Amino acid sequence: MAPVRLALVPGEPAGVGPELCIRLAQQRRDYRLTAFADPRSLAAAAQALGLPLTLVSPNQDATQPGQLEIIEVANATTPDFGAPDPRNASAVIGALQQAAAACLHGDFDGLVTGPVHKAVINEGGIAYTGTTELLAAQAGCDVVMMLANDIVRVALVTTHLPLRAVADAITPQGLDRTLRITHAALQRDFGIADPVIAVLGLNPHAGEGGHLGGEEIGIITPALDALRSEGMQLVGPLPADTAFLPGKLRGFDAVVAMYHDQGLPVLKYSGFERAVNLTLGLPYPRVAVDHGTALDLAGQGIADPSSLIAAAETCARMAARRMRRM
Amino acid sequence: MAPVRLALVPGEPAGVGPELCIRLAQQRRDYRLTAFADPRSLAAAAQALGLPLTLVSPNQDATQPGQLEIIEVANATTPDFGAPDPRNASAVIGALQQAAAACLHGDFDGLVTGPVHKAVINEGGIAYTGTTELLAAQAGCDVVMMLANDIVRVALVTTHLPLRAVADAITPQGLDRTLRITHAALQRDFGIADPVIAVLGLNPHAGEGGHLGGEEIGIITPALDALRSEGMQLVGPLPADTAFLPGKLRGFDAVVAMYHDQGLPVLKYSGFERAVNLTLGLPYPRVAVDHGTALDLAGQGIADPSSLIAAAETCARMAARRMRRM
Repeated sequence: MAPVRLALVPGEPAGVGPELCIRLAQQRRDYRLTAFADPRSLAAAAQALGLPLTLVSPNQDATQPGQLEIIEVANATTPDFGAPDPRNASAVIGALQQAAAACLHGDFDGLVTGPVHKAVINEGGIAYTGTTELLAAQAGCDVVMMLANDIVRVALVTTHLPLRAVADAITPQGLDRTLRITHAALQRDFGIADPVIAVLGLNPHAGEGGHLGGEEIGIITPALDALRSEGMQLVGPLPADTAFLPGKLRGFDAVVAMYHDQGLPVLKYSGFERAVNLTLGLPYPRVAVDHGTALDLAGQGIADPSSLIAAAETCARMAARRMRRM
Repeated sequence: MAPVRLALVPGEPAGVGPELCIRLAQQRRDYRLTAFADPRSLAAAAQALGLPLTLVSPNQDATQPGQLEIIEVANATTPDFGAPDPRNASAVIGALQQAAAACLHGDFDGLVTGPVHKAVINEGGIAYTGTTELLAAQAGCDVVMMLANDIVRVALVTTHLPLRAVADAITPQGLDRTLRITHAALQRDFGIADPVIAVLGLNPHAGEGGHLGGEEIGIITPALDALRSEGMQLVGPLPADTAFLPGKLRGFDAVVAMYHDQGLPVLKYSGFERAVNLTLGLPYPRVAVDHGTALDLAGQGIADPSSLIAAAETCARMAARRMRRM
């Protein structure tokens, strides 16, 4: 089988993204890696870290440590590390869009992305709420945001909503969509034939039989029952505080949380460094780092590349599974 | 200094409460322990476990393993383990109220409680929402629910509310009350002279500068600023998902969460067995187990007594600190 080809987008050039890509490029790997980036930005990061970097044109099969295939996306300026320039917004977003288009076209088998600085992009005149949303719109499909580490995978029914809007956003359609996408991804991308998915309640104690909220009885349980009748293994709705007990977690292939702050604290507590952010439901696997641009660390060589390395390894495994099925 | 005197209430007699009390009574201890309970219930639990139990009248200074002072509160029936009888509701609640009254009267220095089965009490004709609420009403004061283990202490601004009611329940008054009670308890009961308290935001990413909800800017930050001007060390409002990163947690003496499922999953994940439930703000220290009646385990001798043992040890330490200040 030919090696998996991954597209790599560093994200904000003034953040830690470029240097994390340089560190990733030093790893031994059994997949091919092509950066959609400005070569000057990568060279500056390599120089700041004192690490070797050989950029080669794509299709040269650069799998050796220190080598990186590159498709050039020129930045407008070369910002100092730590000082993002909004004039680079269109290059940052353009690199994401080009890489995603190449994945959709089949030129690459998966997409790995570094951190983008949301405020800087918007300051640069581009409406941007997040890379997940951008990729979903470009591909024209529903997606699910999942965060995962070695301990737990957490998928979210709602993501970046004010807390007061969450309860009304829990709908039968949204639950059905989230669970179907999550289930399919566990099978196709993680190779789990018959996944067991834990589903949290919306309310404390999962509503305690209706005493602490009606959404479990009125909305969540019927949605789960409908999917159970198709054969899905769904556990819940479970109280969020005890669903994450280590002994219980070991029995679940994923936990579906109703909202952001219900699902992510344990994920980040239990292994932030190796955590990655996955977009499920796209025609290609996409895995991102689970951290921000860390402007205060950029260019100093002290940023931890664990999350980007885990993202690339996870994406390569997912892509290889899809290729074996073709 | 005379030894600390703790009042102990087993909770539901058909659950694991009585056997956990028997196990607690086997521990070497430097505090006195008086159960408010039915001696037949404790004897049945000791017999089921095959452990020694010598019940003595109070004021006999029973500090040896296997001994327990007792103030008799007769149950209406002797239920089988695992089969709660609603006719015992008034005895279960009565034991709590008698023990609390004795603490308020100064006969005891702290209160340790086992698990109560909410539905069975209500089935027995007694309106009961929780022991925390019962003790607060009896003492006539505002309280804060805190859960704690060896890793983190989490205090809650709101507790058992449907999620859709949470946002409107975050008020300047509620934040002020919660933070003052938590701060005072960290000083008085935990002996931390100048505690550092992390305060979570209500919304994901703590509202992201107002893009994901306005409560951080409109309500939480002003409440924190007012208390900071009095000298309190408050960090936040912080995003809930990253506030619990182990490296950050080590810098906080407590985390104040806005609601139940935001604060408790990490607490339970990181050390459920040794976790305890504290009621802050009462005239006496009160510490409870952080688990339910576990009817399916009762009477088999397999229930883990770690939480009740931790509760008693925590309560004894808190009581001793208060006594040294008198």
